[in-house]
Amino acid sequence: MKATKAHWPTVVIVGVGLIGGSIGLALKARKRAGRVIGVGRSPASLAEAKRLHAIDEASTDLAAAVAVADLVVVATGVASIPGILDQVDTAARPGTLVTDAGSTKARIVAAWEKGRSLRGTRKSGSSLRGRQARFVGAHPVAGSHRRGPAAADPQLFQGRVTIVTPAAATPPADVEAITDFWSALGSNVATMTPRDHDRILAMTSHAPHVVAAAVAAATPAEARPFTAGGWRDTTRIAAGDPELWADILLDNAPAVARALSRIAGVTEKILDALESNDRRRLVSLLMRAKEDRDALGS
Amino acid sequence: MKATKAHWPTVVIVGVGLIGGSIGLALKARKRAGRVIGVGRSPASLAEAKRLHAIDEASTDLAAAVAVADLVVVATGVASIPGILDQVDTAARPGTLVTDAGSTKARIVAAWEKGRSLRGTRKSGSSLRGRQARFVGAHPVAGSHRRGPAAADPQLFQGRVTIVTPAAATPPADVEAITDFWSALGSNVATMTPRDHDRILAMTSHAPHVVAAAVAAATPAEARPFTAGGWRDTTRIAAGDPELWADILLDNAPAVARALSRIAGVTEKILDALESNDRRRLVSLLMRAKEDRDALGS
Repeated sequence: MKATKAHWPTVVIVGVGLIGGSIGLALKARKRAGRVIGVGRSPASLAEAKRLHAIDEASTDLAAAVAVADLVVVATGVASIPGILDQVDTAARPGTLVTDAGSTKARIVAAWEKGRSLRGTRKSGSSLRGRQARFVGAHPVAGSHRRGPAAADPQLFQGRVTIVTPAAATPPADVEAITDFWSALGSNVATMTPRDHDRILAMTSHAPHVVAAAVAAATPAEARPFTAGGWRDTTRIAAGDPELWADILLDNAPAVARALSRIAGVTEKILDALESNDRRRLVSLLMRAKEDRDALGS
Repeated sequence: MKATKAHWPTVVIVGVGLIGGSIGLALKARKRAGRVIGVGRSPASLAEAKRLHAIDEASTDLAAAVAVADLVVVATGVASIPGILDQVDTAARPGTLVTDAGSTKARIVAAWEKGRSLRGTRKSGSSLRGRQARFVGAHPVAGSHRRGPAAADPQLFQGRVTIVTPAAATPPADVEAITDFWSALGSNVATMTPRDHDRILAMTSHAPHVVAAAVAAATPAEARPFTAGGWRDTTRIAAGDPELWADILLDNAPAVARALSRIAGVTEKILDALESNDRRRLVSLLMRAKEDRDALGS
């Protein structure tokens, strides 16, 4: 327990969709920010986020907003995050805290660290510069197949895990400051390397997404009227945004391929038991899966 | 619209778990039965079903209960259904309506029809006899990964599909009578051959169950704390009863293998797009899956 609650005078959220909007709502519900500025490209989304009180102010000018920020959260699709982080770093006051909410981490953190290593090579007139801001990547393992500020929820992070993924060179004080931020939203923070994050999330999120999409697409239209709760549950995440998910999967392709291979291996074992009419082995395989599933609750 | 609602003076439900209990609750809520007798092997389940008012009377003596039935529903696991149908047929008054709620149909209907074809070969002292009862197989495509009478719900069938699967030789009047029964519980009845049923359900239910089990079992324990809603949804049905599911899968093994092969084919396409870094193709595959999923609603 800390004696005082962490508080940030000005928080800038880049991207006011489900995650960005939920961050704004959580900050305001918990009174952890003086003001929240939402930055985005879509005036409609910004207006909706403001109407829903997820943000206090809206801006399409990232540099101007970031220049007054104490903390910046980049909550856009993973493909755009490295470029936005560069823009944030250029516009932010030195020492500004920065984090992101991307579903992959290795590529994003590596891109930031590459910029950091350029420190000291800055030349007059060159675009090369070291990092001025203090970035620590993060991934709130919460979400939905829905999107947009209308789906935002101040409780989205409550009791859920956020994984914070410092690089080897990240100062411990920065990790602590970003941990405080995600904790302030109600989440339980775990810390691991970006590579461990991507390996684990390939198994718990990215590969299941591929499998859900495959089940949905493999089901012929004539069979659809005869689906029930099981099919609906199994395929639900296939309703997620294809552009966002393509970028996540491409960002983490080797780990996703390995996770799919693990899943295919278990499927083969079940199929073998089925085709050899080995009921005992089939029950045993299904029982192990049930135990693994039951360990998580409903 | 019928002028009068179908009503059965005495309905016997063999198996008072989730499905059998829900049938009892629905019959009573809709006042479609004079009395409902539950038959089972477990006195505890029977007592619970009676306490929950899913049945009026409980019996462990199948023959005695069935002898007074106007309609019998067999709502046990698929492996036991053919044997129970034989017992029901032996004990029932000639012309008694009989249906089942098994998740597979071809083997169950074939076993019944085999008995029907023995009509006329009945010999004194032989156990061989033709069918006295009027059986039409059915499958209410509703359910849950939960089980037992405590999970029963009078609305379980409301607005859901029940597939009725007559054999080629089933009299149309019997199909109509059994259609009336499942309609009376609130379900929308579709009619198809047992083989079509099994082929379609392999795709909409049995193969997704295998996939869900494979995802659950492939996820290492260290990754479990980092699962979110997507993993939980995708794997939910893996919590189903392994014994019941092993029998369903074994009953429909060739169709399940074909459905799994379809799913593997789509998975391979997604993996190919991923490994060749073909974003456009990956988005297109995920978009098709999303459209297929969106066609069903949440």
